[in-house]
Order: sequence, then structure tokens, then C-alpha cells
Amino acid sequence: MKKNLFPATVSYSRETNRLSILDQTRLPNEAVTLELASVEQVWEAIDTLRVRGAPAIGVAAAYGLCLAVRNQRSPDLSSLRQAARDGKTYLASARPTAVNLSWALERIERACASACAEPRADVGGAIGAMLDEADAIRGEDEAACRSIGENALPLLEGVTGVLTHCNAGALATSGYGTALAPVYCALERGRRIRVFADETRPLLQGARLTAWELRQAGVEVTLLCDGMCSSVMKNGWVQAVLVGCDRVAANGDTANKIGTSTVAIAAKYYGVPFYVCGPSSSVDLRCPTGGGIPIEMRRPEEITSLWYKKPMAPDGIRVFNPAFDVTDHSLIAAIVTEKGVFRPPFEQSLAALQP
Amino acid sequence: MKKNLFPATVSYSRETNRLSILDQTRLPNEAVTLELASVEQVWEAIDTLRVRGAPAIGVAAAYGLCLAVRNQRSPDLSSLRQAARDGKTYLASARPTAVNLSWALERIERACASACAEPRADVGGAIGAMLDEADAIRGEDEAACRSIGENALPLLEGVTGVLTHCNAGALATSGYGTALAPVYCALERGRRIRVFADETRPLLQGARLTAWELRQAGVEVTLLCDGMCSSVMKNGWVQAVLVGCDRVAANGDTANKIGTSTVAIAAKYYGVPFYVCGPSSSVDLRCPTGGGIPIEMRRPEEITSLWYKKPMAPDGIRVFNPAFDVTDHSLIAAIVTEKGVFRPPFEQSLAALQP
Repeated sequence: MKKNLFPATVSYSRETNRLSILDQTRLPNEAVTLELASVEQVWEAIDTLRVRGAPAIGVAAAYGLCLAVRNQRSPDLSSLRQAARDGKTYLASARPTAVNLSWALERIERACASACAEPRADVGGAIGAMLDEADAIRGEDEAACRSIGENALPLLEGVTGVLTHCNAGALATSGYGTALAPVYCALERGRRIRVFADETRPLLQGARLTAWELRQAGVEVTLLCDGMCSSVMKNGWVQAVLVGCDRVAANGDTANKIGTSTVAIAAKYYGVPFYVCGPSSSVDLRCPTGGGIPIEMRRPEEITSLWYKKPMAPDGIRVFNPAFDVTDHSLIAAIVTEKGVFRPPFEQSLAALQP
Repeated sequence: MKKNLFPATVSYSRETNRLSILDQTRLPNEAVTLELASVEQVWEAIDTLRVRGAPAIGVAAAYGLCLAVRNQRSPDLSSLRQAARDGKTYLASARPTAVNLSWALERIERACASACAEPRADVGGAIGAMLDEADAIRGEDEAACRSIGENALPLLEGVTGVLTHCNAGALATSGYGTALAPVYCALERGRRIRVFADETRPLLQGARLTAWELRQAGVEVTLLCDGMCSSVMKNGWVQAVLVGCDRVAANGDTANKIGTSTVAIAAKYYGVPFYVCGPSSSVDLRCPTGGGIPIEMRRPEEITSLWYKKPMAPDGIRVFNPAFDVTDHSLIAAIVTEKGVFRPPFEQSLAALQP
């Protein structure tokens, strides 16, 4: 498995009670693993995108909430449950768009509540149950990635090249990734699919992360600037677009990294099918349409000066920097989850995910 | 006139025989004027985009060819004409896509030939005639910009915001610019149009140049990454897209800065009219469709490491870096030149430009 090619995106040690994350802000130049010991450090790592990608954020937040509760050293179950509630609110504030964050925190809080309700419950046992739940989230994520890859493969028959935006690969998850999972699954079967990776401004996840992990895995990858997607499609080099998702509304509208909807519109224009890949935990049936998904706005400096030797725009210039956009469901050919391939009309097909 | 707000993009002094250009690679941090004394320096300035924008390249090349011939110190008219032919071939090789480059060089060579054919022709007189022709190209460019602005204004009735890609402003021309000319003309009349400027990867002409010159001129400008154009259009903030052009084929297919066609597709999707603005010298009626326009490919480092403190992609990664793309004529609502507004079907309307 390709994940062995580089340090795990997120892992937790019960011996040291440290959350290890591969610091993605330092890729591709350095592969540095950070050891996080406090919930504040986990919050900072999510906020600054040291750990990013909706599934990986969910896993990191799950362990982060365990750390929060553990470090509180609660004397009794009632203060432990309060610590879990407080930690959940705090961590949920790190990033608003990806639904996996609040979904994972809710699971940990429920595990806490249910452990506290056990006969002979104690603080140590409750924390252990929370860690078990975090491990479960991580394990399910890894399994979901593989299933997404397997489920998407039949859509890629005859496909020799795909285009992707941002990073929805191994670095964004605990496993094979979401959008890149079918590429890795194909590779395991000896089938090579070329990937065209949008650099993904402003934070360059495509250039720094997608190009890096695909290259490590031996996949042929070509880097391009975001506006070049039209030329790549016009040249006929890609027969599918694969992207991840931060939140899918009940009607199929999909929030994903800013720029995704521009790619989807170009794909529609060129007749290239556009597939969204993600775990079912990214589907938010409580959100009827994309209009209900909060879009995180980030600071201007990410566009004007971050990464650069000198500022690349006039000082104090007005900047528009949303972290995500919403791709209209009408532009999406299918949504692939670990539970299968969902086709339009998505209101009807996605409703099957109702618990 | 707003051009007084910063040094002229291109100017020539007959006293010093130097071509002055504002070094656009150093904007927005420094406004440095370079004095070029040789054709090799002019070639380098065009190749490295110290001077860029199809009209400005034409003007710089025109003066560059005068410099080439003058520096040759030809003893007779025959060697002078040979120097003009050699200089033209050399300068035309600097950049292949913008047709204004070869168009301007042809005008200077014709001026040379015709001066040499005069009775009592001499070397000094021929060089003077070439410089007169270069001055004429520059003057016509300045006048064309104003006419483009005036011609485009009626298309922008009720428009409060426009989106533009790359820089087709004063810095790209000898005057008001092409795509930005209507914004400046509106401002002269006290009408404020907000501009949303794509940063324009990889060379950031939008962030470095468009944002800079609009701000100098007092126009409200908002900077965005290229992939965000879809979000801006979806939000209803722009009611028109204005771009320049490097070459327009006889059927209206338009080569312009890479990423332009992606914007045009998004504009079509959102029902925002997409206007191409340029001098009639950018229309190449000898080129039937966009398929015949050569697309310059540039070096990978422009995407992977230029401007950055550290490389932002894995070392040696495969890169796709075309400098231009071709926007299909079907995506273009109108082409605005100094000779008027041309509407589809462009084969028919543009044919009026036949000399």
C-alpha cells in the first residue's frame, strides 16, 4: 500500500498520548511529523491547514477531542461530559465548511455520553471508549477510501487520463484518498491512469500535495495552473474529472475547494464527466441545497503574499478569498461513496443514505 | 490622463537613442524604467515579459528594429535593408503568439524599403523614416485604445462590475489599454465600474499589473485567484467580462492569456457577456481559425518555483505551461476594436477589416 511511502497523515499513540500529523504546510520540501499534545495545538493544526482534507480533519478532530477531555483531568463523569461538550464546540470552530469535522466530533461526544451512562462507568473507561471511537472513525475512513476507489473504477473504463483539483488523495484521508483512490486501485491492478493536477490557488494543494503523493506512488502526474483546465480538456487528455468534497447537500450540490465549480463548468462544456468522491459522512442530508453550506472566507495574504519572496499585489488591495465554492448538482455526473455510486436525481438517490 | 500616474510603458528618445520601458517584472514592488540600447536587450525584454501585452510588444519591437538597423552602422542602403530583414526575423522569434509583433515589424521593414526606394535616399534618412513609422505605430495605438474604450462603453450600460483576466490595461499598451479602456473612459465621465481582477497564474499579471494600475487610477479593484471567477459570477457581482487579445482569427476564435477560455466558458454558463477588446492589428484575417494560432509554451519553473521562497512542487515534476489559450468564437458576445464593435457571425463582420 502506497501509504507506506510516506508518514501517516494522522495517527495517535496511547502510549505517549500524542497525535502525530504530517505537517502538510511544509510539503513538498520537507516531510515533518508534528506531535500534538493539546487540543489547542490540534485546533491550530486544522486552522492553518497543517492537517487538511475533510476526512483527515474529521479523524484529527476526533483524537483532538479525546486529548481535550484527557488533559482536563476531570474528577468525575459530569465534568468529563462538560469537557467533551466544550471541546467539541471549540474544535468545531476551526473550520466551518467540511461537515466531517462536526460529524466526527458528534460521534466522539456520543461515545463519551454512552460510556458515562454505563453501569460502573469511570473517567478512565470513558476516555478509553472515546479513543476507541476515534480509532473506529480512522479505520472506517481507511476502509471507505478503498471502497470509494473500487466503486469508482467501473466509471473509468477506457479512461487514460483524469483531471483533479486540490488534494483528495492519501494526504487528505487515512487511506487511499477519495478522488485519487480509483487511480491507486487501478495502479494495484497494473493499470496506469495519468493525472492532471490543478495547482489549486491560493494554497497550492495540487502542486505541493497531489503532485507529491502521486509521484511517490509512481503515478504519472502533470501539474498545471487552475485556468489551464480548459486547454487540457480541449486537448482530449482527460476523459473524467475526479474531485473530493467537503460537504454534499441533499440535492447533490457539492462544496469543495475553491475553483472546483469552475472546473465542473469547463467539464460540462467539453462533455467530460465530473465525478465527486467522498465518504458518506460528507453527505449532509440536513442541508437541502448548496445555498445552506457556510463558506469559509480566509485572509487576503494567502493570495497576495504567502509563499512569495515579495508581495505580489499592491499593499492593502481588496481581495476575495473564499476557501470553497459550491458546484451545482446539475454539473455532477455521479457522487461516489463507500456505499456506492449515486446518480442524478440526487435528492432521490442520496436519500438512501438516511440513517 | 491616467497614464501620467506612472512612467510610460514604452517610449523612445531620438536624443539618446534609447528605448525606455517600465520593467513590468518588478511591479508592483518597484517602478523601474530600463533604458535599452541594443536589439538584443529589446529581444530579452520581450522574451522575459519586462514589456508585455500585444500592443506594447508591437511598439517595443518597432523601436527595437530601428535600434537594430541603427546600431548596424550600415555603409549603404543595401546592407541597411539586409539589417532590417535580419532584425525583423530575430525580433519576431521573441514571442510567437501575439500577431502585433510581426505586424509592427512588417510596417517598419516596409517603411525602410520605401525610404530606400526614394530618389536621393540615404542611410540616415531611411532610419529617420523607420523611427517616424514606429512613432506612428505608437500614436495609433494610443488613439486606438481611446476608441476601443469609447466603442465598448455602450455595451456596458447598467454594468456596475466587470471581470478581467491578465492585464489588458495601460501597461499593455501606449494608451488607456484595451479591455480596461472602457473602465477608464467611464471614470472620465464620473462613472465608477468595479473591476474584479483574476490574478492570472503563473505570471500574476492580474495581481501585479492590473491591480496596480487600476489602484493608481482610483478604480475600485478586487483581486481573486483564477478559479474563483465562477464564484464571482454566481454572486452576480459582474455583468460583463472584458479581456484583451493576442491574436483574433478570421472566425473570431481568440488567443489570449492562458486561462481566458476557462473564464469565457464560466461566463457563458452564467449568462455574463464576454467581450474581447483589441486593436484591429490583433485581428489576423490570414488565420482562418484558432487552430492556426501558434501557442507559446513556457518553462516549467514559471509554475513550480518562480516568485516563491522555496519550490512549491516536487523537483522535476512534469508541467504543462502554455502561455495562451484559444477562446472559441461561440463564447464571445462581441469583439471591440478602434474600428467598431464586431458581432457574430465573426467571419462576416470581421471581413470588413480586410485592407
